[in-house]
Amino acid sequence: MGSGIWIVDRHTDHLEFHYRVQEVLFSGHTTYQRVDIVRTASLGKVLFLDGRIQSAESDEFIYHESLVHPALVTHPQPQRVLIMGGGEGATLREVLRHPSVQKAVMVDIDRQLVDLCDRLLPEWHQGTLHNPRAELQHGDARAFVEQAPHNAYDVIISDLTEPIEGGPSVMLFTVEFYDQLASRLTSDGLFVAQAGSADPVYPDFVASLYQTLQEVFPRVHVYWAFIPSFQLPWAFIIASKRYDPTALSLPELEQRLGERQLQTRYYSARLHPAMFAIPPYLEDVLRQRGRLIRDQHAFIWQA
Amino acid sequence: MGSGIWIVDRHTDHLEFHYRVQEVLFSGHTTYQRVDIVRTASLGKVLFLDGRIQSAESDEFIYHESLVHPALVTHPQPQRVLIMGGGEGATLREVLRHPSVQKAVMVDIDRQLVDLCDRLLPEWHQGTLHNPRAELQHGDARAFVEQAPHNAYDVIISDLTEPIEGGPSVMLFTVEFYDQLASRLTSDGLFVAQAGSADPVYPDFVASLYQTLQEVFPRVHVYWAFIPSFQLPWAFIIASKRYDPTALSLPELEQRLGERQLQTRYYSARLHPAMFAIPPYLEDVLRQRGRLIRDQHAFIWQA
Amino acid sequence: MGSGIWIVDRHTDHLEFHYRVQEVLFSGHTTYQRVDIVRTASLGKVLFLDGRIQSAESDEFIYHESLVHPALVTHPQPQRVLIMGGGEGATLREVLRHPSVQKAVMVDIDRQLVDLCDRLLPEWHQGTLHNPRAELQHGDARAFVEQAPHNAYDVIISDLTEPIEGGPSVMLFTVEFYDQLASRLTSDGLFVAQAGSADPVYPDFVASLYQTLQEVFPRVHVYWAFIPSFQLPWAFIIASKRYDPTALSLPELEQRLGERQLQTRYYSARLHPAMFAIPPYLEDVLRQRGRLIRDQHAFIWQA
Amino acid sequence: MGSGIWIVDRHTDHLEFHYRVQEVLFSGHTTYQRVDIVRTASLGKVLFLDGRIQSAESDEFIYHESLVHPALVTHPQPQRVLIMGGGEGATLREVLRHPSVQKAVMVDIDRQLVDLCDRLLPEWHQGTLHNPRAELQHGDARAFVEQAPHNAYDVIISDLTEPIEGGPSVMLFTVEFYDQLASRLTSDGLFVAQAGSADPVYPDFVASLYQTLQEVFPRVHVYWAFIPSFQLPWAFIIASKRYDPTALSLPELEQRLGERQLQTRYYSARLHPAMFAIPPYLEDVLRQRGRLIRDQHAFIWQA
Repeated sequence: MGSGIWIVDRHTDHLEFHYRVQEVLFSGHTTYQRVDIVRTASLGKVLFLDGRIQSAESDEFIYHESLVHPALVTHPQPQRVLIMGGGEGATLREVLRHPSVQKAVMVDIDRQLVDLCDRLLPEWHQGTLHNPRAELQHGDARAFVEQAPHNAYDVIISDLTEPIEGGPSVMLFTVEFYDQLASRLTSDGLFVAQAGSADPVYPDFVASLYQTLQEVFPRVHVYWAFIPSFQLPWAFIIASKRYDPTALSLPELEQRLGERQLQTRYYSARLHPAMFAIPPYLEDVLRQRGRLIRDQHAFIWQA
Repeated sequence: MGSGIWIVDRHTDHLEFHYRVQEVLFSGHTTYQRVDIVRTASLGKVLFLDGRIQSAESDEFIYHESLVHPALVTHPQPQRVLIMGGGEGATLREVLRHPSVQKAVMVDIDRQLVDLCDRLLPEWHQGTLHNPRAELQHGDARAFVEQAPHNAYDVIISDLTEPIEGGPSVMLFTVEFYDQLASRLTSDGLFVAQAGSADPVYPDFVASLYQTLQEVFPRVHVYWAFIPSFQLPWAFIIASKRYDPTALSLPELEQRLGERQLQTRYYSARLHPAMFAIPPYLEDVLRQRGRLIRDQHAFIWQA
Repeated sequence: MGSGIWIVDRHTDHLEFHYRVQEVLFSGHTTYQRVDIVRTASLGKVLFLDGRIQSAESDEFIYHESLVHPALVTHPQPQRVLIMGGGEGATLREVLRHPSVQKAVMVDIDRQLVDLCDRLLPEWHQGTLHNPRAELQHGDARAFVEQAPHNAYDVIISDLTEPIEGGPSVMLFTVEFYDQLASRLTSDGLFVAQAGSADPVYPDFVASLYQTLQEVFPRVHVYWAFIPSFQLPWAFIIASKRYDPTALSLPELEQRLGERQLQTRYYSARLHPAMFAIPPYLEDVLRQRGRLIRDQHAFIWQA
Repeated sequence: MGSGIWIVDRHTDHLEFHYRVQEVLFSGHTTYQRVDIVRTASLGKVLFLDGRIQSAESDEFIYHESLVHPALVTHPQPQRVLIMGGGEGATLREVLRHPSVQKAVMVDIDRQLVDLCDRLLPEWHQGTLHNPRAELQHGDARAFVEQAPHNAYDVIISDLTEPIEGGPSVMLFTVEFYDQLASRLTSDGLFVAQAGSADPVYPDFVASLYQTLQEVFPRVHVYWAFIPSFQLPWAFIIASKRYDPTALSLPELEQRLGERQLQTRYYSARLHPAMFAIPPYLEDVLRQRGRLIRDQHAFIWQA
């Protein structure tokens, strides 16, 4: 019986994912985007933004642990962290697992989305949206960063949707913005970004982001993780002023994770270096398919 | 952009209808069936029972006018009417348009469904579920009919879902039941039933119903209408003790419609005889593909 | 098991029909349009043009009999017939059933399509594409008509695809063209056209065609038929110089069908007048929603 | 425009993948399974067996390199290799990249499938199905192994479809078969198997295979790769009599790959150890969710 209610993620004009819906928790528009929150049989609750899957209860831990821990573990003592985007609150949740963090600021342009997630996705934020170490800001992340004082953050995390035509994140991946952002990091600070698909077919975004960040930061490393509900291997990039995330030995990693008492289901001391081992096809892509992303020539994701 | 929420009607294992959903008004189960009530862009609100489209705001008038008026117009003075099924209240709405009707009893087994329709589908019932001339009963229509006194109704209307495996309507299409039903009609009473698809591919139900009713009633006439949201031409059957629905002349029909001040959008004096003109392929089917439906050998609809 | 190959007819942005495919007989482009010919479980072979269902083996007889016979039966002695479009050859098949027809000219712009139908759809044309009474022309129907001598045809049949943006039939529904066409008919000639959907949601095309033909012909009548594989009631229009298709009595119709020994499965003497009985909602549409179609303001079908 | 021909992979009852089809190269049944070979826009040619995606031109290299090279590189001098299954010929292609291999025997039960792949998927086998070092056998892999002499192979590769109800591979994952298989390996031989999904939702197969192989082999290691067209992280298992695939240092790996002049796009000396770093959630699954697979209690994959 295929009858019933389904949600369709038109991944490209050539590939669609159809998920059977058990319950529609929310379906509507905020000022900035279309939001669908549904319950599915196989993935649990799922958040879709502008028709694209964003986060599934069954494996959001893979994405959020992969986004947060490699950078925060590379930093010996992260105290002040900025999250750009991150509406579900799960990035915040992972950041606050690090006991050294005194303040985590999350700036998401879409207050209505954050309120929906606060109410409907407690499995994601687990209350951390109201944690006293957390500070929520609503507004454009670029403006927020540019108004921030210099040396304000040890780690900045870019947990933004992909830059689709007319979307709110288009101007948040340019070299001009990254120049501003770098100066708000401390002299040993790190920046980490989710960087889109790492598959052989659509790797242009990560390649361009990689090239762009190399203009600004002395050390730039691509790593990846396998997020089943994204149907794709997923790329992340760490851009660092001083620390090298690939230089930590296994004993050092084990010690740090032990000291911080990190409870994780995907990330581990053994996974940390493995995530930075990327295949030759992706290395080729990083060398060949990128371009510098500028304010005047922003990157728009094409399906 | 095909992304978003859709409802799928798996018409057969070989044919599916996919409707884009603007809003899910209800999706769940009653004691008797799965119920989905959604709002779509092209058809307005739509009711699905057990995954199959049942009624669409855009064209339910075609179905309900076609079900009710040919029989009630054929009767010169219908006063007492029984509706079996009819949960949405739209059959009731059309029945009550006839001023001679003093009491319309509707017996639907699924009280939860009737309550949902009462609350969510006012465009269908238009308040008639609470009309003083209407009486709502909840229970099995067969038991209700068998307990009714003889000669109780001028017209009985069968507005039931198709007899699917395990569904509540399987025993409501048998010759044994129709024997009982006929005796609850007055001596000039009429019975009318929605009789399923009239297309060239799946016409077995109407053919068997036609043959079965001929065992019980002296006059049995098949007529049809096209209900776009059913994607099919649809058959109806009038089984009559005395009046011949095809014998009324155009002037007579016009006079009756005028006297009763019927406001309709599909049915009309000119449509009345046209609906009884069925094509040769359907006549062939009626002659060849039916069988007698018995309690011991009920009809189960196969997709 | 919903796995396997399907063909999708995106009827509108809000409604899709998905047919399971047993075999792909052809899938490609001619100079003029995309053509898919597949075999399905429930409908047999099916022809899709530009992604829209055009003709199904299971019920093409309904469409083609409805298009041809009302006009040809209304004419007492049709001898010369012109078919515009009609690539499958089934319109030709029905025309040649009338023994009085001496020559049936079919002009279809898409020779590759006609060749495909000739080879892959013999169930449609049944050899009539090679009948000595048939003449096949390839080219633009408007140019062909405008170059034809006056009084050349007793009946002209418009069996064209709907006028979609950039499609080949856009200029074949305008008042200027119909002026030319009318003069190629004999003084008692008839024109008949398939006129698109007759459902309550998308009836603008038939309404405009109706209004446009009334500018040119003294008698214009809309009729309809129920073609299941179109998922919609379907409109046709007869525009006549002299004969009234609704004026034939049942005995007259029976006599003509008998003389011509017409073997049909949908059309019949009883169906003939019934097809001209259209419901009030459609009469309202014809009165209210049409506009004159001009060369300078052609009608483009919008899903 | 979503119209056109699509192929649907009903991954589970709750999740479907829909791929737009550019061309159907083959669609039919062999004696053993349904086979669809289509060309898609984003993935190139794709092979589906029994409705499930098996191999896509765009990323089959990830699967086949991941299946073959970790085991063959771990063996210092693989000379005789047996492939069970492997119909496309791409596993054979990767095996023959190792110059030490003198004979690679491929035993696939489905000769018609191998012939189809030979003819329609040259991008996969690249002619190696006809390489003089290759030997093709058609028949049941279990019977073939049980009739083989002891110590016959240095490496045996299990490239089989998942054990679905009634499918040909059900009896090829049991402890009784692995006992037989182990004795056909040389005393330093390795066995490697594709082991199904490694995602958090459906990991039971890999867990049970892991437990079953531990009954037979002293060293069993799970590793993984992400194959985008499988939409999932994918598990593999190496079961080894002597060599430890995780014990090779990076310089040793680099030396071996250099000596063998391996040209790869996914596998590399750096990837080799990274593939064996699996996340805590998967380690938990391997500890908790497996069971011994026996002839009397075979594993049947449930969607």
